[in-house]
Amino acid sequence: MENLIVLKYGGTSVGTLDRIKNVAEKVAKLHRSGKNIVVVVSAMAGETDKLLGMAEKLIDKPARREIDLLLSSGERISCALLSIALQALGCPAEAMTGRQIGMHTDDAHTRARIIHIDTTKTLKKLKENKILVVAGFQGINEDGDVTTLGRGGSDTSAVALAVALKAEQCEILTDVDGVFTADPNIVPNARKLDMVSFDEMLEMASLGAKVLQIRCVEFAKKYNMPLLVRSSFEDQSKGTLICKENKDMEQPIVSGVMRDDKQAKITVKGVVDKPGIASEIFTALGNAGLSVDMIIQNISAEGHTDISFTLASVDCDEAIAIMEAITDKIGLKEILVDRKISKISIVGAGMRSHSGVAAKMFQTLSAEKINILMISTSEIKVSCIIEQKHSKLAVQQLHSAFNLEKKPRRITKKQ
Amino acid sequence: MENLIVLKYGGTSVGTLDRIKNVAEKVAKLHRSGKNIVVVVSAMAGETDKLLGMAEKLIDKPARREIDLLLSSGERISCALLSIALQALGCPAEAMTGRQIGMHTDDAHTRARIIHIDTTKTLKKLKENKILVVAGFQGINEDGDVTTLGRGGSDTSAVALAVALKAEQCEILTDVDGVFTADPNIVPNARKLDMVSFDEMLEMASLGAKVLQIRCVEFAKKYNMPLLVRSSFEDQSKGTLICKENKDMEQPIVSGVMRDDKQAKITVKGVVDKPGIASEIFTALGNAGLSVDMIIQNISAEGHTDISFTLASVDCDEAIAIMEAITDKIGLKEILVDRKISKISIVGAGMRSHSGVAAKMFQTLSAEKINILMISTSEIKVSCIIEQKHSKLAVQQLHSAFNLEKKPRRITKKQ
Repeated sequence: MENLIVLKYGGTSVGTLDRIKNVAEKVAKLHRSGKNIVVVVSAMAGETDKLLGMAEKLIDKPARREIDLLLSSGERISCALLSIALQALGCPAEAMTGRQIGMHTDDAHTRARIIHIDTTKTLKKLKENKILVVAGFQGINEDGDVTTLGRGGSDTSAVALAVALKAEQCEILTDVDGVFTADPNIVPNARKLDMVSFDEMLEMASLGAKVLQIRCVEFAKKYNMPLLVRSSFEDQSKGTLICKENKDMEQPIVSGVMRDDKQAKITVKGVVDKPGIASEIFTALGNAGLSVDMIIQNISAEGHTDISFTLASVDCDEAIAIMEAITDKIGLKEILVDRKISKISIVGAGMRSHSGVAAKMFQTLSAEKINILMISTSEIKVSCIIEQKHSKLAVQQLHSAFNLEKKPRRITKKQ
Repeated sequence: MENLIVLKYGGTSVGTLDRIKNVAEKVAKLHRSGKNIVVVVSAMAGETDKLLGMAEKLIDKPARREIDLLLSSGERISCALLSIALQALGCPAEAMTGRQIGMHTDDAHTRARIIHIDTTKTLKKLKENKILVVAGFQGINEDGDVTTLGRGGSDTSAVALAVALKAEQCEILTDVDGVFTADPNIVPNARKLDMVSFDEMLEMASLGAKVLQIRCVEFAKKYNMPLLVRSSFEDQSKGTLICKENKDMEQPIVSGVMRDDKQAKITVKGVVDKPGIASEIFTALGNAGLSVDMIIQNISAEGHTDISFTLASVDCDEAIAIMEAITDKIGLKEILVDRKISKISIVGAGMRSHSGVAAKMFQTLSAEKINILMISTSEIKVSCIIEQKHSKLAVQQLHSAFNLEKKPRRITKKQ
């Protein structure tokens, strides 16, 4: 639809009635300027955790189907309230649940994937000049049960709606001003990036930048939907545009430094070194839905070897249980666990055409006597596992070593 | 469905996680005893008021459509939590929203009426031995928008489901032990009634007994579905059975005394006394959806008369505005308002066959020097409007005058 913009406000932005009023005023202004608007909202800050906390007091692992019904209420409340706040300003707003906006998903409760979006009703209402206020994070499956898209799923709701409705742009309004070269809490002179490519953002999101959910960026990339991430609190915020790589973009070698402290390293010692053992281990973990990040296999000695891998620390206990279950099968002698590690990463599309970036990272860490435990690389990132106690220092030193506080010169070819 | 019981737990009964666990234990026990069970729940105590309060901070009169979406979240939360609590006890429970249980209503938001209930899915799940935990108070209209059935609507949900599913009985579990001869807070020796007829309960509900919503009783009467009202806190509670009048029933002349302090009296003075004026007044009020209770027209003097009527005090301001708007049309001179009144009523199916009941009521009030401002009667009730300051005394004296603290002898004809 022409002139359509999809906005998404996070939980902090709708966390109180005053903030909801504030959001309503901004949306009303934009609507009066002639835009067609769909606003997706998260639950009021703290609501989702409160609801989940109640369920977990009743049972350790509540059924995912009931959790989806429970948690989806949070977004329904904030969406009804924002719609009412818009009506109070004289705007023709209508609150819409996931079902009403036509969000059909598979039935993987608590992490459902969008199958298709039925836009008939939505387009009709938009043509009647209505502002649609949508409960994010939720949809329904084929049986009509409520599903949710996983934590941060409202971002995905917004992008998916923007794609389905052929919006001009999707804006993610949040409590930060955009994507930064590093966490400003750790690196005070971290710089906001004006533009970031989808690929860089994907790496950043998976490496610990919390500003956007990975699936939302994947979706945006797949359908080439530009995402503007900006602050809902500062009207002047220009934010960060996440879009297809193009020549107008800043082309620094490194765009940002990320830190992820929520990692754990498991080492299985003395496993038999024969074909199929690694496969045995990682198939068992994969079957349990655990996502392994880095893997190292030591050089074999006397027919035995050690294998280390990292994964999200929340999955650590389950992984240990799985290893214990296959102890005999793989002939392992000991399981070591290290939860005090961090993953430090540098990301930059410019790495593709520059060599020596990884070497510079290793030198920088080495100069600070920070030991590198594991390394993994892709075309546009280098990640190192280090001891957690060094993680802040590592981020600060890398930020400085790659001059990220300075705006890189554009390498645009203008006529 | 054979062996099916529909239970309804009110907001106080599911007001905390501990109470939800407590309800789950009772339901689980009943299910293990071989019953098929549908449990309807209200929102956790205080939740509906909290949500409504938020909306009313945004605008005086929020749109009814958004209010329905907002308030319906409360029941979704409690129903998901009770379902989780039942699963924690090993029961095959499933949470169902109004839509999922097939509750189709008209589109009169905030006071929708049930049009039909699609029981296909529900019966299928019940045959799989599932306990269905239903979010009360809500349904959907033809457009798929969420609707609600009005305050106390969960009672109506429960009765309607019991009827549609051909349940054996519908139990309303609440924070009181049943229906009493008077409010025990005012009359300490008020007696719990074992049985009450639908007609008596209808009068009682409309006259200030808060234990059941009128519509729920109307529904139960229409389809002859026995309702058992009892305490969710005391396992031994036998409660009050509300059913069709029968010969086994206690047949006291008066079953109970009710008090309603939320009434106001409006007097329009000096209106022209000609045909059509009363119609003008009450049509105007009716068109605005205001429900007038009692009406008195004074004897005419010099071509003018005074008309007094009572209505719910919440509607009083609107009624005054309407009277002011038609001042010229009906030629009225003055509007008097009295908000300090009470309606005191006695109800009893036995009145039909006994004369002198009203006279005894008037004598009792008169003996206490309580002035009667207005009177209305039906086959099975007498109501008097009195000054509010006398209302407690009036209830106590009437309770005693009709010997309500004593169990009446049964007038059953046994062989």
